[in-house]
Amino acid sequence: MPESTVGRPLRADAQRNRLKVLAAAERVLAKDGSAASMREIARQAGVGLATIYRQFPTKEALYEAVVVERVRRLLDHAHAAAHATDPGDAFFTFFTFAVTETTGEKALVDSLAVAGLDPKAGTAPMHRDLEKATGVLLRRAQAAGAVRAEVGMAEVLALITAMCLAADRQHWDEQLRTRSLTVVFDGLRPQLRP
Amino acid sequence: MPESTVGRPLRADAQRNRLKVLAAAERVLAKDGSAASMREIARQAGVGLATIYRQFPTKEALYEAVVVERVRRLLDHAHAAAHATDPGDAFFTFFTFAVTETTGEKALVDSLAVAGLDPKAGTAPMHRDLEKATGVLLRRAQAAGAVRAEVGMAEVLALITAMCLAADRQHWDEQLRTRSLTVVFDGLRPQLRP
Repeated sequence: MPESTVGRPLRADAQRNRLKVLAAAERVLAKDGSAASMREIARQAGVGLATIYRQFPTKEALYEAVVVERVRRLLDHAHAAAHATDPGDAFFTFFTFAVTETTGEKALVDSLAVAGLDPKAGTAPMHRDLEKATGVLLRRAQAAGAVRAEVGMAEVLALITAMCLAADRQHWDEQLRTRSLTVVFDGLRPQLRP
Repeated sequence: MPESTVGRPLRADAQRNRLKVLAAAERVLAKDGSAASMREIARQAGVGLATIYRQFPTKEALYEAVVVERVRRLLDHAHAAAHATDPGDAFFTFFTFAVTETTGEKALVDSLAVAGLDPKAGTAPMHRDLEKATGVLLRRAQAAGAVRAEVGMAEVLALITAMCLAADRQHWDEQLRTRSLTVVFDGLRPQLRP
């Protein structure tokens, strides 16, 4: 019978395996979408199927953990960026990171929805933290004159969402992502008309 | 038995009913999503259920017709805009029109996908025409100096898609749409840095 890991920290090797499985799951999901197989995830993680099922009893439990891990990573990035010496660069780098990190999001969300799970249920409080952290980055960038003062949080979040959705849906390569973000970032920066 | 209407034009009253049904279907879909009922669509169109089923034997046939009608409307707009006297205004107005028109798109696409239909199957050639027409508007706007010369079609289409997806997914109201598009449009316009 698998040991319960609820309520106490994982042992170091279990924690290492967990991170390897999550990373492999992200790669496989990005490539195979909702057709991703647990066997392939185990193979890429270099662990046995039993090891995965010990921590993630179902595919959906694994997918939920991937979603949580992504939001946590974004949140870590945002918190670290709040102390950067160049607030403009910190804001635009975070925006880019959010869009880059979204690859495979739709496959994840669809897989969870098919299983009747709300993909946001586990991350709603983290999303609120993420909005707060994004707000800090925006205000710092505006105070530094790197983002126009009249731009509000609502449209910044709307634009991040828009770019994330399209990047994922259309499988933007790095060049298209850079070119599209350049337009949005130029629109956010203070400017003089010719 | 319903008369076949394949291969010959609809009578004027049938054509009027068809347009009323399509308009009602769009309204109901935008409000109720995939839970939209044919009965409610008939009520709002002011026609009987039998009238709808005569032209659209299934809900999916109706949804496909709504998708085609939307793309046709966008295409008509793009073709007309190609002759506008202000090419910059024509380009940005078309971009805004595309985003405004997308409301309810996800519900439609999801409903068709659930029925195992490819929502793009019927509109692929129209989408190619639409890209071509968007290219004409972009080049005219660039020639007039209203859009930066270095902006390419790829990122313009990527940005239109991005804004359409987010507007639909997040139910943007007019204010959020305007504020978000303002940022993108400013990024597309020629600019001097302060």
